[in-house]
Amino acid sequence: MPLNIAIPRPKAEEFTKLAGISKIYDNLEEVFEDPQVDLVDALLPVQYNLDAVNLAVKHRKDICLEKPIAANLGQAGQIREDLDILISINGNFVYFKAIDTLETAIGKIGKVYSFTYRCIEPFPFSSEYHATSWRQMPQHVGGYLSDGGVHQATILSGALGQVKSINARNKQMRDLSGTDDILYSVLEMHSGVIGMLTYGGAFGNTEKRHLFPIRGDNGSVGLELGHDAPAKVTLRIGGATAAADKYTEEFIIDNENDSPVKVLEILGKALTAGDKSKIIATPEVAFHHLAVIDAAIESSSRGGQTVEVKSLI
Amino acid sequence: MPLNIAIPRPKAEEFTKLAGISKIYDNLEEVFEDPQVDLVDALLPVQYNLDAVNLAVKHRKDICLEKPIAANLGQAGQIREDLDILISINGNFVYFKAIDTLETAIGKIGKVYSFTYRCIEPFPFSSEYHATSWRQMPQHVGGYLSDGGVHQATILSGALGQVKSINARNKQMRDLSGTDDILYSVLEMHSGVIGMLTYGGAFGNTEKRHLFPIRGDNGSVGLELGHDAPAKVTLRIGGATAAADKYTEEFIIDNENDSPVKVLEILGKALTAGDKSKIIATPEVAFHHLAVIDAAIESSSRGGQTVEVKSLI
Repeated sequence: MPLNIAIPRPKAEEFTKLAGISKIYDNLEEVFEDPQVDLVDALLPVQYNLDAVNLAVKHRKDICLEKPIAANLGQAGQIREDLDILISINGNFVYFKAIDTLETAIGKIGKVYSFTYRCIEPFPFSSEYHATSWRQMPQHVGGYLSDGGVHQATILSGALGQVKSINARNKQMRDLSGTDDILYSVLEMHSGVIGMLTYGGAFGNTEKRHLFPIRGDNGSVGLELGHDAPAKVTLRIGGATAAADKYTEEFIIDNENDSPVKVLEILGKALTAGDKSKIIATPEVAFHHLAVIDAAIESSSRGGQTVEVKSLI
Repeated sequence: MPLNIAIPRPKAEEFTKLAGISKIYDNLEEVFEDPQVDLVDALLPVQYNLDAVNLAVKHRKDICLEKPIAANLGQAGQIREDLDILISINGNFVYFKAIDTLETAIGKIGKVYSFTYRCIEPFPFSSEYHATSWRQMPQHVGGYLSDGGVHQATILSGALGQVKSINARNKQMRDLSGTDDILYSVLEMHSGVIGMLTYGGAFGNTEKRHLFPIRGDNGSVGLELGHDAPAKVTLRIGGATAAADKYTEEFIIDNENDSPVKVLEILGKALTAGDKSKIIATPEVAFHHLAVIDAAIESSSRGGQTVEVKSLI
């Protein structure tokens, strides 16, 4: 399938002036052919990601992509780590400091048993996201559920490891969403930890909630992702025995990496040092994030039956 | 199976003095045979409920029982409404005013799509509940999960109708619990509403949480059951359209029926007026509450597979 998403030249020329860009290409392959280009930041609707990666592999050119990794797991499975070139699936959540803070705190609450990941928002009528046709008529599985849900899978698996299986019930609340837009699910992790994932931004008037409590036999850890406030991790110690020491600690996440700056900084270092090891957003990791949402959608379509989260073979 | 749970006579005699009771029986059937007894309040470990009901039916005597209705659904299914006698399965949650407040509020949030029922507590090392042998070695299915969980099923189905199916993952955190003591599940209601039920009082240091948010396309309703404060229902209206009127209302539940007084008052009225219609805690209703927990336990034992909640045939 040829990749054909040319921007009309007059519009492209207007954009180059506004953005101070010097060069326009007539098709995507020309970009990869240009020896002056070190890295292609392929800001494409994700159903074109695989085609772009294929060009990158063909021309041995480094590339970064938008999340989710692809429109479906079939495409995602064809995007593989490459020894020679760099493939990064950008998403600012991958480099969240909060994930490291969670990991450290989780190590202090005894044996971990369960969690509840909840990301709930009222429907944003004025959101700019509704204006893009690739979101209105999603070719990516689950539409908003995968577009946004991979963020939640990023924090969830970043803190607790990979998801093994899922039972989900989804619904569509808004016509604009194009497909199901709320997800309620129970998960089992490869570690044996059990928990819940609730995701949805289509509700009527309700409080915004982005909370991730994790519970063990000697305490609990809670992440609260503020919309107007810095993220906060609350650690409550104690409870393994009646005599266990009890205390609470709070960690405010200052200067969270909630912009693309950190992603680009890490990419830049990888390019200049020739060392890809600091890139967390690898195809393998991004595949898992999409696989979690894909499994939830499959489970819901099968009346909540247990669906194993697929892994790259 | 003969019901044989006699209290040694010296202990019983001591108790009658302390409690100001005038009469001791040598076995349970004698109580039902006594023409001076109008109602037997059978405060028994629930595995004896069916035997007590059989005596009540045999002797045409009114009876009330402790929740859950029985130790398992097999027994529960044999406890049926009776045209002549009154059978009430006591549980103060059944008569909670909060349920009525929820019902009214739910009617105002447009089409209802989903809910999250969450009852989370740290493990109560000093709880008197651990001292009773019938709780330490539970014969009732799921131990604490059914003993406590039927309370949650009471509020849940009181507000949103009956549960159709469930996918659950349970775990055992504490040896003292005897069996699984935390439950994470996703539910589908007969109405089509989807949601979650999280129940567990075995965690390490964590905040007590007894919250029940219900979400629609024109608002949301949240029940907060206070441990030290009165229950509160928060109603948030708006969101069906961008222009929909938005406002928030709070309802504080004063003088909640959180003692057995209301249960006994309703029983008393039923006895004196001969009208059983005000008794909500019927065998059929209490069967459903146990059936929800039973289905969760079966689902978890089968790796989260979808289990239909059984109904009385």
